[in-house]
Amino acid sequence: MSMIGLFDSGVGELTVVRELIRKYPGADFVYLGDTARYPYGNKSKETVERYAVEDAKFVIDQGAELVIVACNTASSLAMDKLRATYPDTPFLGVIKPAAALAVTQSKTSVGVVGTRATVGSGIYDEVIKELNPKLKVLQKACPLFVPLVEEGMIDDQVTKMMVRRYLMPLRQKNVETLILGCTHYPFLQPLIERFMGKRVKVINSAEAVVDKAYELYPGLFKESKDSKQTISFTDASSHLDSLASKWLGKKFVGTAVSL
Amino acid sequence: MSMIGLFDSGVGELTVVRELIRKYPGADFVYLGDTARYPYGNKSKETVERYAVEDAKFVIDQGAELVIVACNTASSLAMDKLRATYPDTPFLGVIKPAAALAVTQSKTSVGVVGTRATVGSGIYDEVIKELNPKLKVLQKACPLFVPLVEEGMIDDQVTKMMVRRYLMPLRQKNVETLILGCTHYPFLQPLIERFMGKRVKVINSAEAVVDKAYELYPGLFKESKDSKQTISFTDASSHLDSLASKWLGKKFVGTAVSL
Repeated sequence: MSMIGLFDSGVGELTVVRELIRKYPGADFVYLGDTARYPYGNKSKETVERYAVEDAKFVIDQGAELVIVACNTASSLAMDKLRATYPDTPFLGVIKPAAALAVTQSKTSVGVVGTRATVGSGIYDEVIKELNPKLKVLQKACPLFVPLVEEGMIDDQVTKMMVRRYLMPLRQKNVETLILGCTHYPFLQPLIERFMGKRVKVINSAEAVVDKAYELYPGLFKESKDSKQTISFTDASSHLDSLASKWLGKKFVGTAVSL
Repeated sequence: MSMIGLFDSGVGELTVVRELIRKYPGADFVYLGDTARYPYGNKSKETVERYAVEDAKFVIDQGAELVIVACNTASSLAMDKLRATYPDTPFLGVIKPAAALAVTQSKTSVGVVGTRATVGSGIYDEVIKELNPKLKVLQKACPLFVPLVEEGMIDDQVTKMMVRRYLMPLRQKNVETLILGCTHYPFLQPLIERFMGKRVKVINSAEAVVDKAYELYPGLFKESKDSKQTISFTDASSHLDSLASKWLGKKFVGTAVSL
């Protein structure tokens, strides 16, 4: 058995699981959504670290040999703490793979959108500058995008207004790539691409992290005979099960766990 | 010493503390905002109960003789559990005082707006019908109001559109009163009153619960010599302190606590 662990603060990051299943349908994984303490986006570094360590313990205890931190907030605030706490387990966050992809496709400037916590941490700026110090990084926090997605207002007049309001400064500055630095945002990708125009390449961090994980640990993605794919929530509900099943294209029943 | 305890899921419910200070500036109180696990509004009954019991324990341990559950979600889902767990402490939720006030001012129908959890619980409908079975209760969940308030978009075109969209059905049905069944919503009271028109009486649940607490336990509100007013957060930050100080009109430094 070769088990991939994933955790995140809620359900938005199921977009990472969706990518995983789409590309490697037989891979074993254990996924935890910390829905009881969702969202992490506006919480302090100390609190996000504490939650991330508890989340990681759960998937490691279930046999995970690699942990994908499928949450931009935890990826930007808690990676050092996770690696220090569990030195024997490799961790992969969603920030670096997306940043690396953006760098290969940009000559002068990269745009980044995310939650207030992710943008405030400056992590994308830091990682991109490490890879190419000449690139300008223009960031914009879009705190209403998550609630709009969760309300299903994917193609709504109000959402269009907020896309325009948040992204206008990035469009005016002619960014060449735009990183969707929050895994809820791929649901708004069509609206965002329409607003930004064809010359801007939009980068989905969920897709980037799955590609990177496969590149680094291909052995973990092989199909097993008795494929084991489990989803757990700290606050389980039938609403979450139907959301997960709909998004992932196959039936899942989430297990309720206490951390 | 006579200590009032208050707790809630975040900071929105500081509107209750604001009412308390405005009317009884010398009253002793201990307030806990469970900001680390905020928001409760979309969580299950079991999770909200568990969190509420932990929150209540904290304020009781600090000497609270009455606990005001300054959170509509916890008031609608966790009161029975709280009373069963701490039978010696009186608990007062925000639902009944607002419902009672609405009933005295309505002849045919009452409107209620709140989070999805509060509206889904049907608690306002139940409480109002107990008081006057002839009243029609029209409810509407307004899940975007909380993020809009937290973004400070108090007088914004997008917020106006959402007020119109959420409240139009209630306006068309000619409700006579409208309960703001979430303590974030008083910030939108001017917009809501403008949209609903002068004939609709808008009821602020924060104000109603403080009036009720005083009516039931006047002895707890007397001014003490060494007035003790403390604010704690499960996820403290200077941002929260400045928000609390601004809203409450005097300087507060929140203590960080783990539950």
